Amino acid sequence: MLNVKARCTCGPAEPFIATTIRRRDPGPRDVVIDIAYAGICHSDVEHARSLRGKTMYPIVPGHEMAGIVSAVGDAVSRFKVGDRVGVGNMVDACRECENCRAGLEQYCSGGRTLAYNSMGRDGEPTYGGYSEKVVVDEAFVVRIPDRIPLDRAAPLLCAGITMYSPLRHWQAGPGKRVAIVGFGGLGHVGVQMARAMGAHTTVLDLSPAKREDALRFGADEYRLANDPQTFVALANSLDLIISTVPANVDLDAYLGLLARDGTYVNLAVTDKPLSLSAASLLANRRSIAGTRSGGLAQTQEMLDFCADHDIAAQVEVVSADSIDDAYRRLLAGDVRFRFVIDNSTL
Amino acid sequence: MLNVKARCTCGPAEPFIATTIRRRDPGPRDVVIDIAYAGICHSDVEHARSLRGKTMYPIVPGHEMAGIVSAVGDAVSRFKVGDRVGVGNMVDACRECENCRAGLEQYCSGGRTLAYNSMGRDGEPTYGGYSEKVVVDEAFVVRIPDRIPLDRAAPLLCAGITMYSPLRHWQAGPGKRVAIVGFGGLGHVGVQMARAMGAHTTVLDLSPAKREDALRFGADEYRLANDPQTFVALANSLDLIISTVPANVDLDAYLGLLARDGTYVNLAVTDKPLSLSAASLLANRRSIAGTRSGGLAQTQEMLDFCADHDIAAQVEVVSADSIDDAYRRLLAGDVRFRFVIDNSTL
Repeated sequence: MLNVKARCTCGPAEPFIATTIRRRDPGPRDVVIDIAYAGICHSDVEHARSLRGKTMYPIVPGHEMAGIVSAVGDAVSRFKVGDRVGVGNMVDACRECENCRAGLEQYCSGGRTLAYNSMGRDGEPTYGGYSEKVVVDEAFVVRIPDRIPLDRAAPLLCAGITMYSPLRHWQAGPGKRVAIVGFGGLGHVGVQMARAMGAHTTVLDLSPAKREDALRFGADEYRLANDPQTFVALANSLDLIISTVPANVDLDAYLGLLARDGTYVNLAVTDKPLSLSAASLLANRRSIAGTRSGGLAQTQEMLDFCADHDIAAQVEVVSADSIDDAYRRLLAGDVRFRFVIDNSTL
Repeated sequence: MLNVKARCTCGPAEPFIATTIRRRDPGPRDVVIDIAYAGICHSDVEHARSLRGKTMYPIVPGHEMAGIVSAVGDAVSRFKVGDRVGVGNMVDACRECENCRAGLEQYCSGGRTLAYNSMGRDGEPTYGGYSEKVVVDEAFVVRIPDRIPLDRAAPLLCAGITMYSPLRHWQAGPGKRVAIVGFGGLGHVGVQMARAMGAHTTVLDLSPAKREDALRFGADEYRLANDPQTFVALANSLDLIISTVPANVDLDAYLGLLARDGTYVNLAVTDKPLSLSAASLLANRRSIAGTRSGGLAQTQEMLDFCADHDIAAQVEVVSADSIDDAYRRLLAGDVRFRFVIDNSTL
């Protein structure tokens, strides 16, 4: 076993502390990755604080890992020591179900293994990216193109693919009008992608202060989500709305923005049920849908797309001692746009 | 003006009474139709009783009309006296908006004119099919193939197209697993269509007594919607669920039946908002959508499809004096499967 430095928390109100976890010895198909940077995702906070009620403590969060391969198993064919690689929110799946065979491991019906707070095939809990090293089957490792700095690549492994997958699935592109609700960790990457795909891209956010950033990242329009005029101006005009907001919103108001056959995609799990009028869907044959990150093949495609289009996350690098402070600031909306932990400070 | 016998109600709790309404003299593009049969749709009851709160009294309901052309305007090109024709829930639309130009008049953004309880371009309220004659622009008239008896054709003009349109849009066909929730006026037509399109078709209904009928109409499976085992047996298995039920159901339970990329289509306007967990959509990338009847071109396609596949409504013909009783029985679920008024009894 490998002894690995990590940061964990032992309860919903406990601070992060330094600890040592054990990683399995690499098997024939395993890649050992020295994690350089780990992004801090909103769902890390939800799990660390047990807001979803299913946390196994101690927990080592982190499912946006970027680093360098430091060892490979005998049967590893796609990676070698020194490669720049990433790991996202899945580290295994059944690989046999229809969804896995379709390259959509995020919908694996045989039981995925998530990067942390999950049980591996070996019956051991998984620990995430707030750690020195991780050992992952090569099938769940992706290559980070040289053009993307590792710190700015880390958030692409969750935030990036979670935006890219629905943009592709619902065919954002020339002639399509896309809106992204919430200009944060996910939204600021999604805007860059939607624009690069050729869609007319509108950002809706509560903060007037983010307008310049949104336009800088390529938004065609920036509108305030708490201004009633927004919902008049955009009525019946959008083909795709992707909401990154982890809170309940007035869905009927947002659905009213969709043109015929438009889709509202909700990325987050909200505390309360979604509530909407049936009439909002009947008009214009609208849909509301959900989506879950993306499969491994598409994650690689996304990274290559980002490299080709100069897309990356804008990050604020923090030390491991600052995780609690970063969580506090994240919940206060005080980050532009993603915290990443410098894992050399573990 | 034409004086036309009709049945109307003058208030939410008033019985239907015989009356005389006036129809416009036919213009150059108008068709005068002697209505032979008029279907009774659940939404007739909702409007007649002002359950949606927007009823203009007196109201003459009826948007499932089948009859014979008795006169045509000079410029009418597609119909002649003696033709068997039908009129559905729309009698006009702007014909200029993007949706109208796409043949999807049901989503007209310029303002549709509905068959009743609506305002026509002439500023007069519209009156529906519970009447001797109707005058309609030929663009909103469809041809009823000879193979379909007029009484059994009438319900196709609303119930039929409201099922056919989503079945086509969400691509019911070979290899697709479709479920229809509610085996009533809409459901019993939808089952025939889904089966004729080649989809594996399951019916979910509360009544064990309808099983034989459902299988006779072509259902591959019949399951009870109040049996928890139904939701175990069908979990993650369906591509398309079309709910005809005009009431709030446990959406999370139904969404759990959808396979990856499956869609739950809600046809009815419900009293209370739809409520569902975001997680139900995230899993399997599910969608919930709405849809509204169908355009004129597709309504004609539907009638031709029905003729080709020996599909028609199973009806119980009632006299005009029995409308109140039919409403009562409809709300009690006591009809197999659609009431139609014999308009010769007006």
